Amino acid sequence: MMNLAALVRARDAGKAKPELMVALSRDAIARREPAIKAFAHVAAHPEVAKDGPMAGIALGVKDILDTYDQPTSYGSPAYAGHHPRIDSAIVNLARRRGATIIGKTTTTEFAYFQPTETVNPHNPAHTPGGSSSGSAAAVAAGMIPAAIGTQTGGSVIRPAAYCGIAGYKPSYRLLPTTGMKAFAPSLDTIGLFAASVENVALLAALLTGRDLAFNANEMPVVPSSIRVGVYRCGMLKSADPAMRAALNKAADMAADAGFDVGEIGEPEAMARASEAHSTIEAYEAGLACGPDLARFPDLLSPLLLNTLVEGQDISPQDYDAARRLAKRGRATTTALFGEVDILLTPSAPSAAPLGLNLTGDPRFNKLWTLMGTPAVNIPGFKNENGMPLGIQAVARFGQDKMLLAVAALLERALLLDRAFWG
Amino acid sequence: MMNLAALVRARDAGKAKPELMVALSRDAIARREPAIKAFAHVAAHPEVAKDGPMAGIALGVKDILDTYDQPTSYGSPAYAGHHPRIDSAIVNLARRRGATIIGKTTTTEFAYFQPTETVNPHNPAHTPGGSSSGSAAAVAAGMIPAAIGTQTGGSVIRPAAYCGIAGYKPSYRLLPTTGMKAFAPSLDTIGLFAASVENVALLAALLTGRDLAFNANEMPVVPSSIRVGVYRCGMLKSADPAMRAALNKAADMAADAGFDVGEIGEPEAMARASEAHSTIEAYEAGLACGPDLARFPDLLSPLLLNTLVEGQDISPQDYDAARRLAKRGRATTTALFGEVDILLTPSAPSAAPLGLNLTGDPRFNKLWTLMGTPAVNIPGFKNENGMPLGIQAVARFGQDKMLLAVAALLERALLLDRAFWG
Repeated sequence: MMNLAALVRARDAGKAKPELMVALSRDAIARREPAIKAFAHVAAHPEVAKDGPMAGIALGVKDILDTYDQPTSYGSPAYAGHHPRIDSAIVNLARRRGATIIGKTTTTEFAYFQPTETVNPHNPAHTPGGSSSGSAAAVAAGMIPAAIGTQTGGSVIRPAAYCGIAGYKPSYRLLPTTGMKAFAPSLDTIGLFAASVENVALLAALLTGRDLAFNANEMPVVPSSIRVGVYRCGMLKSADPAMRAALNKAADMAADAGFDVGEIGEPEAMARASEAHSTIEAYEAGLACGPDLARFPDLLSPLLLNTLVEGQDISPQDYDAARRLAKRGRATTTALFGEVDILLTPSAPSAAPLGLNLTGDPRFNKLWTLMGTPAVNIPGFKNENGMPLGIQAVARFGQDKMLLAVAALLERALLLDRAFWG
Repeated sequence: MMNLAALVRARDAGKAKPELMVALSRDAIARREPAIKAFAHVAAHPEVAKDGPMAGIALGVKDILDTYDQPTSYGSPAYAGHHPRIDSAIVNLARRRGATIIGKTTTTEFAYFQPTETVNPHNPAHTPGGSSSGSAAAVAAGMIPAAIGTQTGGSVIRPAAYCGIAGYKPSYRLLPTTGMKAFAPSLDTIGLFAASVENVALLAALLTGRDLAFNANEMPVVPSSIRVGVYRCGMLKSADPAMRAALNKAADMAADAGFDVGEIGEPEAMARASEAHSTIEAYEAGLACGPDLARFPDLLSPLLLNTLVEGQDISPQDYDAARRLAKRGRATTTALFGEVDILLTPSAPSAAPLGLNLTGDPRFNKLWTLMGTPAVNIPGFKNENGMPLGIQAVARFGQDKMLLAVAALLERALLLDRAFWG
């Protein structure tokens, strides 16, 4: 995989020009893309900025985000060849920082569940996950050092886990969603992908100008002062044995690394909030994508069409009740993060399922999307077949930097563990 | 003005067909539009539904909201002749209920401050207010019974007040903003206009299917159980004498109508939140409209361009600090609405200012937009020149029905007062 931090260091030391950095990605795409199918479109003549914190970074952008100079199809035949008038806000921000938009990465239809053709770089018979399928696969296949995706259910954390890379869903509204094809606006969140947690933190820092990055030798956290809780939620029993073993291993490693590790039970209000996600998502999608349902019903998949029709049948009273559950869940989540700094959970019930006709299960992600809390996929675990397993770390709203630093320390502990013990 | 409730009653009694109802508006537009200039576009052959709760309602839609079959220019030469691929969510919702989209009403550039050509129907030398200039003026001029607008600062309540009609800014996210040209997404709110508060409540009920309407003879509130507070905020001294007199009169009428009336001081946290609005708005606009600034800098007004450039210069730290002030303000607002049910404030510092080169001052509206609380402009007051003055009623988040009912009772008390005393 491409190491974003190493590329940026080489550039800043005058050892790699932006043109060369982008050319590396163009070569890698030419070699790997025919097998991986991670791109909906590759820029023919991408602009390369000479200056700016992201100069030379070849960024893949999920095709759910508008670009004025590359077609934007939202994973749907209804938008084949669509050319938006302007960029999405996040793409504009990346360009202002000097990034090169190298191409549009595949998305499931409207970032819902209808799959793309993209395969998992670790085994092409397995799904890369969704909905940010192409963003995760393109980074995992070593074609690009960084990609942008979105999460409304589990669409950043899950594909990152399935593809064995770092995925970061920031606190709600840390990154702007304007110019994203809206699905459920109170849930829609922009997220980032890179090879490692350190890289994804650097990407976030370069993009936002926020103090989110860290030097590996000067971490902004002291492990003994950080309370890490293994989140013993009811749905944990639905995770497969390899995933439960990985979670236990992550907890052991956290303890070995000096963190204050314990177990955290699932508050009832958070279990109920997790269940409320589907109602909120479907109701809002019925509104946000109602115009598509009206205009292009024949061009929508049956899966999406049914969700929108059902969403339009949800009463405002049921939606309000679900929002009240979410509100109570948020208050409880905030209180819980008074007792613990980091929660660890599976990123998904298992490694990437076999087959390309489904994109996997977001059940471990939906609550945190609804809560607006930052979440990171820590890569590096594997199941018995060598397929990646991801552990999700979650922190309180706004604690993005602490979360990224802790996740990076755990990732490093895992790498050292593997280096020593195989 | 056109009475929406009377039209709907006539339709439901079989006395007015939807085609006739729409024809009434087409005739009125033909007569009045040349003088008022409230429309950016009038539909040549508008579809009229036979069925649906909004069948026959000729709805004006602010030209900041996408329509697939009518040009959508966002008040900007950068979007002259722009044809979005699909409707905005709110327009689609209105069509699903059977409404006729009779035309696009004028908006200031990107719903910011650069004015339209629209004049105030009460005196064409005065601004109708902004940014929903055309929506307010078209209803006030009797061309249409109902219109949709948006508010990010004071763009619903202010033009409603200046034009002497009812304006309703619902609780945040009660109406969907997808397909609205985003300016500051955490503030952007869809709002409604109609001749009276009863009419605007009916419009909200028909559009959403929510229980928001009421029968004038069976009001859902008992005045003696409702605590009405005159909000004595610091900026009240900036309201002109006529407006301060109108506020006192509204308080007296509320007491006469049996409400439990008192005065409420301004909590420090709410004053500070009000000041935080500008930072939040400019920072988010710098992101949301950054793509426009990049693509069409020469087609933006200097006023908008400067705001976007300045917004992009605001640091994330300053934005976060402003958001924290807003969060504290929301907690204080919620606590305040434990002591009082309705707050009364001016809708604007004065009646509509003379001249068409400015759209007036949103200072009395920005706090409530940021707080996400529902607000209603109660029309019917006048200054010494006969220009309309509006009083703003505000309630706790989610208390939209109670707010609309109380505002309707106050509006009726005012009408009776005027009928008896001139």
